[in-house]
Amino acid sequence: MLTGKHVAIIGGDARQLEVIRKLIELDAKISLIGFDQLDEGFAGATKVQLDQVDFSTVEAIMLPVSGTSSEGEVETIFSNEKIVLTNDHLKATSKQCTVYSGISNQYLKTIVHSSNRKLVELFERNDVAIYNSIPTMEGTLMMVIQNTDITIHRSNVVIVGFGRVGMSVARAFHGLGANVKVAARESELLARVYEMGFQPIELSLLANEVHNTDVCINTIPAKVLTGNILSKMPTRSLIIDLASKPGGTDFRYAEKRGIKAMLAPGLPGIVAPKTAGQIIANVLSKLLLEEQNTIEEEQK
Amino acid sequence: MLTGKHVAIIGGDARQLEVIRKLIELDAKISLIGFDQLDEGFAGATKVQLDQVDFSTVEAIMLPVSGTSSEGEVETIFSNEKIVLTNDHLKATSKQCTVYSGISNQYLKTIVHSSNRKLVELFERNDVAIYNSIPTMEGTLMMVIQNTDITIHRSNVVIVGFGRVGMSVARAFHGLGANVKVAARESELLARVYEMGFQPIELSLLANEVHNTDVCINTIPAKVLTGNILSKMPTRSLIIDLASKPGGTDFRYAEKRGIKAMLAPGLPGIVAPKTAGQIIANVLSKLLLEEQNTIEEEQK
Repeated sequence: MLTGKHVAIIGGDARQLEVIRKLIELDAKISLIGFDQLDEGFAGATKVQLDQVDFSTVEAIMLPVSGTSSEGEVETIFSNEKIVLTNDHLKATSKQCTVYSGISNQYLKTIVHSSNRKLVELFERNDVAIYNSIPTMEGTLMMVIQNTDITIHRSNVVIVGFGRVGMSVARAFHGLGANVKVAARESELLARVYEMGFQPIELSLLANEVHNTDVCINTIPAKVLTGNILSKMPTRSLIIDLASKPGGTDFRYAEKRGIKAMLAPGLPGIVAPKTAGQIIANVLSKLLLEEQNTIEEEQK
Repeated sequence: MLTGKHVAIIGGDARQLEVIRKLIELDAKISLIGFDQLDEGFAGATKVQLDQVDFSTVEAIMLPVSGTSSEGEVETIFSNEKIVLTNDHLKATSKQCTVYSGISNQYLKTIVHSSNRKLVELFERNDVAIYNSIPTMEGTLMMVIQNTDITIHRSNVVIVGFGRVGMSVARAFHGLGANVKVAARESELLARVYEMGFQPIELSLLANEVHNTDVCINTIPAKVLTGNILSKMPTRSLIIDLASKPGGTDFRYAEKRGIKAMLAPGLPGIVAPKTAGQIIANVLSKLLLEEQNTIEEEQK
């Protein structure tokens, strides 16, 4: 349990509601900043303005998936007020305070570092990335079903990359009856591709294997779907790029060649906000509980 | 090959283009009625008006999936002209002429019967229904991903009916990691449900098994999702009814209870028109070739 632990939850979207729910379950003391328009009442959580928070007791700050803007602004869909997190806020917190965020940027890193606090980027964690690959995979299925005139079943699908997302996507398409090829660089990944029943492709030889591609899904955040490779694909191909912005596709060339190529947005928050929120809530509460145990150990 | 066989293709949508392609491949003689606005040229198929067709040589008529309206009108997306198929057209055809349609109605049955020709309802065939269950299944996945805030993975899915569509849908949801229960009446179907690793439910006991349902998919064209059963479901449940109109759900009660229930339209033509057209083209050409062989046998 997190009884009495003071957590400040600042901003966010529907996903944050799952975090609030989970922390209430664990009996934390919760201050909600940027939730004044939230209809739903949470017994055990108090809505406050940023300047009214008693930061001296705050042991954890939970930011939205996006963290802050480069000017420190924190996004929230539950308030019209502008919320800016500063150095001074962090300095005022309890010394053991940790800041949790989905991703971060230079601004956030700087204020956390200069106030001598700890920053945890949840989306950098492998466990979060693997859990998130599930809604990402389902969102990818949805986009492919919507944007092709053929079935996934018996279609020729090439998946580029076999990391945390690539494996989930490959399994899903294979399970629905697609012919799945997976391109990767490392020989151990190609061995796993083979073991799982997909056709392995050496990434450097990808251009030789795309002539009959119906759907190509990229998961590698580097320029892998180059003009050379796109020039070997049929123009009917659909490309879904799951790598973070700007993706790994030469979108300009794809358009020129008449290939439909789409950079997928953050799919988990779109297709399954509740599950995506639960993923964050579960990992966050695990981390807070571990932290709690460490502190208690030290105090013994 | 269907060399020289005269087939009149009347009306339709994008699916019919796959039929035309396939019959051209097989060297049939094709008259296209209701295709005057079709840009794509088909070498080997002639666009004609209905009253210009020499029906005396027509050995097969291919109607759209919908057949005719109750007044004999044939739908087409490739023409603005009104096309009405009558008794007289059919009487003028070659004696061995067969009329192929997706579904039929009293009007179509009557004119075919009274002109002493044969009617084949392709969508009544088990093979067509099984092939079509693939795009139906993919369209169902799309609707569920779009209309829930959770992932299919680990969700509680109840599938009602284990026929041609039910089996495909159950396999797909199971493959994506859902907890799948299947309700059916016949003990042999329940045995197959068990063998395939899903949880079998006696249809008569369905009300006892829906208390934690996230998604319910009906495939039985009879009132199976009654008010009694819906009253046991959580209000968060999503119901997708795949049974042909009017479906098997008490939609009025579902709305009253706040359960989202959707009657799915003809999904194959929507989510995968090309594949759906190929399904029709493959079965139709197989039937025409068999007919051809029978006629040749008889002539020996």
